[in-house]
Amino acid sequence: MTENLLRPYVIGLDLGGTNSVFGIVDSRGDIKATTAIKTQGYKSVDDYVKASVNALMPIIETVGGIDSIKAMGIGAPNGNYYKGTIEYAPNLAWAHDCVVPLADMFSKALNNIPVGLTNDANAAALGEMTYGVARGMKNFIDITLGTGVGSGIVINGQMVYGSDGFAGELGHVTVDRSENARVCGCGRKGCLEAYCSATGVARTAREFLKNSEEPSLLRDYKPDDITSLEVSLAAAKGDKLALKVYDFTGKILGEACADFMTFSSPEAFVFFGGLTKAGDLLMKPIKKYYDRHVMPIFKDKAKFLISTLDGSSAAVLGASAIGWDL
Amino acid sequence: MTENLLRPYVIGLDLGGTNSVFGIVDSRGDIKATTAIKTQGYKSVDDYVKASVNALMPIIETVGGIDSIKAMGIGAPNGNYYKGTIEYAPNLAWAHDCVVPLADMFSKALNNIPVGLTNDANAAALGEMTYGVARGMKNFIDITLGTGVGSGIVINGQMVYGSDGFAGELGHVTVDRSENARVCGCGRKGCLEAYCSATGVARTAREFLKNSEEPSLLRDYKPDDITSLEVSLAAAKGDKLALKVYDFTGKILGEACADFMTFSSPEAFVFFGGLTKAGDLLMKPIKKYYDRHVMPIFKDKAKFLISTLDGSSAAVLGASAIGWDL
Repeated sequence: MTENLLRPYVIGLDLGGTNSVFGIVDSRGDIKATTAIKTQGYKSVDDYVKASVNALMPIIETVGGIDSIKAMGIGAPNGNYYKGTIEYAPNLAWAHDCVVPLADMFSKALNNIPVGLTNDANAAALGEMTYGVARGMKNFIDITLGTGVGSGIVINGQMVYGSDGFAGELGHVTVDRSENARVCGCGRKGCLEAYCSATGVARTAREFLKNSEEPSLLRDYKPDDITSLEVSLAAAKGDKLALKVYDFTGKILGEACADFMTFSSPEAFVFFGGLTKAGDLLMKPIKKYYDRHVMPIFKDKAKFLISTLDGSSAAVLGASAIGWDL
Repeated sequence: MTENLLRPYVIGLDLGGTNSVFGIVDSRGDIKATTAIKTQGYKSVDDYVKASVNALMPIIETVGGIDSIKAMGIGAPNGNYYKGTIEYAPNLAWAHDCVVPLADMFSKALNNIPVGLTNDANAAALGEMTYGVARGMKNFIDITLGTGVGSGIVINGQMVYGSDGFAGELGHVTVDRSENARVCGCGRKGCLEAYCSATGVARTAREFLKNSEEPSLLRDYKPDDITSLEVSLAAAKGDKLALKVYDFTGKILGEACADFMTFSSPEAFVFFGGLTKAGDLLMKPIKKYYDRHVMPIFKDKAKFLISTLDGSSAAVLGASAIGWDL
């Protein structure tokens, strides 16, 4: 307690493929200061860490200097919580073919404050539990519907990292075992992510347009220009084909959640990420197909919630949440 | 510690649809005394508890009386760990249409010793963790392949009970979403249990026999007389059709385990129950299809183990293991 009074802030780093966004956060989830650098374009990870610290120092000074900082949390692709490493992250030039001990490197560069690291979807779940709609929940599953599908699982009030630090990859459960299942970015076939990510939704729309003559507002676009945004705008105007795309997406997600329920029987599923902007267009079908499909003993037990964290700051908040437990 | 020296034993009750088997167990997993009664045939649950206590008292005396007993653990169908209740268990006459507070009832009848209760598959996992091949493991999934398919999930060294006490129903994840998926005992379609339980294996054999002209030792039986035992005996003799049944079963289980891996990334999958007597006939296909299907980051991480607990005593040991934590 005294420690938290003396060191009232944690640093959160949302390490994305393009930008690295830093925030200094207090225990109520208020972001006191932010800064950012480009993630790529450095010769080595050493240079990346140096550039980060150069950007961080001025904002650290605004909250009273490094002695006011309790710890740092990093949300990063292919992050291993146990080791504090980023491992073979395909989209990071300085970490795509190696294991980078990023937590240790930041700790050394920042007066040896504790630094924790996990993957971005786990960070989102921690943010939800610390500052968001899952506050006070001991058992929930956070599902990120963005460019990919990520997940963070909380059981008995603890993040599930598994035996190796990589647990919670629910975007890669198989939802279609047939021959003509979609190929996924992971190299396998039929993964949830291939259907229910933003790119999956756009792909579904293109398939539906190609396989029918049905009129649709989406026919005004070249197929390659359709993203999940165009689908949601068309659906909001009542476009039937676009609504079918959401029904299809919700069916796959709802049935997948029914399967996840048999695993850890969470109190809630919390959805986060760009696709959730569609609101009820997506949530109603998820709930409808979940109810039809779930085991009777689990009926009406789980809540289906959309994250209330502001999208632009949620990732930083989530990353910072790691810092409180170090 | 002193408490454990003064009260060195726990009672385990394996409460099955037909028999209720009691054992008095020490901390090393040695069963010091056993007794059993029929589970059914009582007018009420009160009569069942009375009959149980009447059977228990003589064996309790053999270990020094009730003051030597630390606690009691019960493994039972539809057991709710949080409430110590059996809830709407279809196969129990005195609990099929109600919620029975069985843990409290036994506690009152046995000098107020602590009594814990969970479902039989969770009890098996606890037994495995306390006395079996999962000793010392913090993250594993125990899969019971018996008349049904049950599961017990351990994460961070703790049993996963979920928000309601019913987590870990992996026998009811959907492995076939097609129209002609098999109907499951739970009333839904395409569940793992409908394919990979002992009854599921027999059903696969009957389907394969019906849909081909292939010669097979299994054609010596009337279709209705074929159980998983006949299939394993035929497969052990090299019968090709029976081997195909195991390949089919192992494919579904191996691919399901690849999905389970994305959830909690366990150190091991431990298989328990009648079907595991087939040994490599079943384990080799499970491993083969798991390796083909699992996400690259999880490759070669999980062990596939068969329980080493003696089948007849494992359920009692598992139930007793609940008692040590009360």
